[in-house]
Amino acid sequence: MTIADRWLLPDGMDEVLPPQASRMEELRRALLDLYHCWGYDQVMPPPVEFLDSLLTGTGTDLDLQTFKLTDQLTGRMMGVSADVTPQVARMDAHSMRHQGPARLCYCTNVLRAKADQHQGGRSPVQVGVELFGHAGLEADLEILLLALTSLKLAGAEELHLALGHIGIYRSLVEAAELDSDQERALFEALELKSPGALSEQVAASVSDPALAAMLMALGELHGGPEILDEARDRFAGAPVAVSEALAQLRALYQGVLEAHPQVELYFDLAELRGYRYHTGMMFAAFVPGYGQALAKGGRYDDTGRAFGRARPATGFSMDLKLLASLVQSEPACDGIWAPAQGEGAGEAIAALRERGERVVQALPGQATAPEAHRCNRRLVYSDGHWQIVAL
Amino acid sequence: MTIADRWLLPDGMDEVLPPQASRMEELRRALLDLYHCWGYDQVMPPPVEFLDSLLTGTGTDLDLQTFKLTDQLTGRMMGVSADVTPQVARMDAHSMRHQGPARLCYCTNVLRAKADQHQGGRSPVQVGVELFGHAGLEADLEILLLALTSLKLAGAEELHLALGHIGIYRSLVEAAELDSDQERALFEALELKSPGALSEQVAASVSDPALAAMLMALGELHGGPEILDEARDRFAGAPVAVSEALAQLRALYQGVLEAHPQVELYFDLAELRGYRYHTGMMFAAFVPGYGQALAKGGRYDDTGRAFGRARPATGFSMDLKLLASLVQSEPACDGIWAPAQGEGAGEAIAALRERGERVVQALPGQATAPEAHRCNRRLVYSDGHWQIVAL
Repeated sequence: MTIADRWLLPDGMDEVLPPQASRMEELRRALLDLYHCWGYDQVMPPPVEFLDSLLTGTGTDLDLQTFKLTDQLTGRMMGVSADVTPQVARMDAHSMRHQGPARLCYCTNVLRAKADQHQGGRSPVQVGVELFGHAGLEADLEILLLALTSLKLAGAEELHLALGHIGIYRSLVEAAELDSDQERALFEALELKSPGALSEQVAASVSDPALAAMLMALGELHGGPEILDEARDRFAGAPVAVSEALAQLRALYQGVLEAHPQVELYFDLAELRGYRYHTGMMFAAFVPGYGQALAKGGRYDDTGRAFGRARPATGFSMDLKLLASLVQSEPACDGIWAPAQGEGAGEAIAALRERGERVVQALPGQATAPEAHRCNRRLVYSDGHWQIVAL
Repeated sequence: MTIADRWLLPDGMDEVLPPQASRMEELRRALLDLYHCWGYDQVMPPPVEFLDSLLTGTGTDLDLQTFKLTDQLTGRMMGVSADVTPQVARMDAHSMRHQGPARLCYCTNVLRAKADQHQGGRSPVQVGVELFGHAGLEADLEILLLALTSLKLAGAEELHLALGHIGIYRSLVEAAELDSDQERALFEALELKSPGALSEQVAASVSDPALAAMLMALGELHGGPEILDEARDRFAGAPVAVSEALAQLRALYQGVLEAHPQVELYFDLAELRGYRYHTGMMFAAFVPGYGQALAKGGRYDDTGRAFGRARPATGFSMDLKLLASLVQSEPACDGIWAPAQGEGAGEAIAALRERGERVVQALPGQATAPEAHRCNRRLVYSDGHWQIVAL
C-alpha cells in the first residue's frame, strides 16, 4: 500500500475538520438545549447491541443497513446502530419504565453499511427526539413543531413540510382483503408513483369498484392543503379510520399554520416510506437546494412491545452533519497570542483563560503568524505588567 | 429469543440514561471549551476507516482491539476506530498540512473488541488533545498541565501523576545490541515487574556488566521525585540520551510542581505501556478509588510518517464516561409545568422557552405529577394573564 492510498477514506465515512467541527458542536449544543427547554431528557444509546435486540420489529430495511460484528466474548452477532429510534424505544420500554409520557432526546454517531439516497453518507450524526406514552394528536403536533423549530434554529429559512398518514393506505388495503403478494405488488406500484402500474394492480386484485377507485385516488392525492378537501370527497365511503386520519392531518395542518405560518405545506397520501414502522402521521421537512429531507419523523406506536411494554411513540430525527451545512459562518478571530515565556506569563495566561478568553501560547522557535491561529490580540509585558494589545 | 433476552446489552457496551447523560454532556462541553481556551481546534475523525490506514504504525495491540468490517462497496477491510490518536495524526499529516505547531482536540465514541483491564468498557467516549509540530519540552509540559487542568475541571481532587520516559529503556536496549527475541524477553520481564525474570534475562543476553547493572536498575527505579537523583547516579555511564531523558523528566516535574503543587508525583522508569507507540515522556493520572488511569498520554513523534509527513506529536486522552462518574450531582429541579391547553398558552410557553426556561407541557389525560418531570413551578392563567407560581 502506498502513502497515497493510506489516507483514502471509505466512501461516505467522512472526517470533519475545523472550522466545520466547531459549527457542528455549536449546533449540537443549541439543539440539545432546545430539547431541554421543551422538557426532553438526553440519553446515550449504546453504539453496539445484539442484533436480535437492534432489529426487533424494524423490518428488513434496517437489517440491510446494519454493520454486523461478532462478539468475541459470547460468539453472538452484534450490530452497529444504524438508527437510534428503536434503541431509544427499548430504553423507554425496558430501562426507564416511566409511568405516563416520557420525553427523550439524543445526539450520536450511527453507521450505515450502505448509503441510502434519502440519507446521505454512511456515518451520519443522528440527532432527534422521541415522545413516548401518549397516543393523542397533541403529542404529534408537539413533535412537528419541535422539528420545525429545530430547523429554524439551524438556519433554515424557506421550509417545506411534507405530511402524510399511513393509516389511510393501511385501512384501504385491509378493507380490500388482499393477500400478502397482492399487497406487496400494490405497495410497489404506489412507491414507484406509476399510475399505469397502480391501475394494473388494482384491476387485478381489488373486486369492489368503490375500493378500487379509492386506491387509485391515493396515487393522485398529493399537493397543497386543498387535497384534504378532495380526499374527504373521494374517500366518503371509506372505512372510518380513513376519515379519522384525514381529520388528524387537517388538525396538524392548522397547528403548524398557527405556529409557523410561513412554512410551505405539502400532502402526499401515497407516501409509504417507513411503512412497516410507522403507525400514524409521517412527515419530512425540506429546504430548497437539498435533495434529501433535513428532518423526518412520525408516529410509530408499539415498538416497545418486543421488550415487554407496548407504548405509543412519536418523534423525529435529523443528520447533524447535513444540518450544519445550512449556514457557513466564518470562525471568530478573537484569540490572544501569548509569548513562549516570560516572568509571570503563566499566571497571566491562566487568568485570561479562566475568564473564557482563548489564549494561544507560542512555542519556542515557532515561526507561524498569530493570525494563522485566529488571534487578533497579543499579550505583552509592558510598563511593569502583562497587558493585551491589538495585533 | 424471549423478551427477557432482548434487552440484554453486550458486555461493556453501555447505555447512558438521564441524569447521567446530561452530566456527560455538561462535562463534554466544559472540556471542549477548556481546550478552545488553550487554542485547540475541534476535529471529528471518521468512525470507520480502511484497516490499513487505521493500524499504520500503531502495532498489534490496537489491531486486536479493533472491530473489523467488510466494506460492501469495495470489498476492502475496514476497522471501527478503537483509538482516535492515530486518526488525528493522519488528519494533521494529510488533511490539514499546517505549517508549524497545530493544536487539535476531539470527543467521540470509540469501540473496542475486547475490554482492556486498563481501559474499562468496550464503548468509551474518548476525549483528548494532540499538539503536533513541536518537539520541545514546552509542548510536553503544556499537554501535562492541560491534562491535570482537565481532571480538576471534572471534579478530581486528589491527583496522582505517574511520569516515565521511554527513551531511557530504548537507549539502554540499543546500547546492549540485543536481537529481537532477546529484546522481547527483556521487555516482558520488565512488564511483569519481576526482579527474578529480569535478572535472568539480563544475565542471559547482556554481556557488558555496566549495561547489565543499568538494566537491572530500571526495574528498581520507581517512586517519588528522589528517584531522579538516584537514576542520575546509577545511569552515570549511560548513553547521552538517557541523561537527556532524565533532565526532561526533572523539568516536567518542576513545571507541574509550579502550576499544580498539590499533585502527587510518581516516577516509574520501567513503565513501558505503549512502548511501540511512544517516543518520549509518558504519563498517566490517577485518582484514589479508581483502579485505572483517568488520563493517559505522552509523546509519539513521527506517527504521521506513514501518511507522508513525519511530525513531532504529544497529547493525552481520557474516557468521558469514566470521568463523568467522578462527581454525582443531582439534576436540577427547575422546570415549569404548563397546562395542555388554554387561550394564549402556546405563546406564553414559547416566550418562556425563548428565555431559556425549561417548560414541560402536560398532555391531555396525563396523570403524572409535575415533580416527576423535574418541575418546581407551574404556569397558570390568573388575573387576565399567564403567570408562574410555585408548586
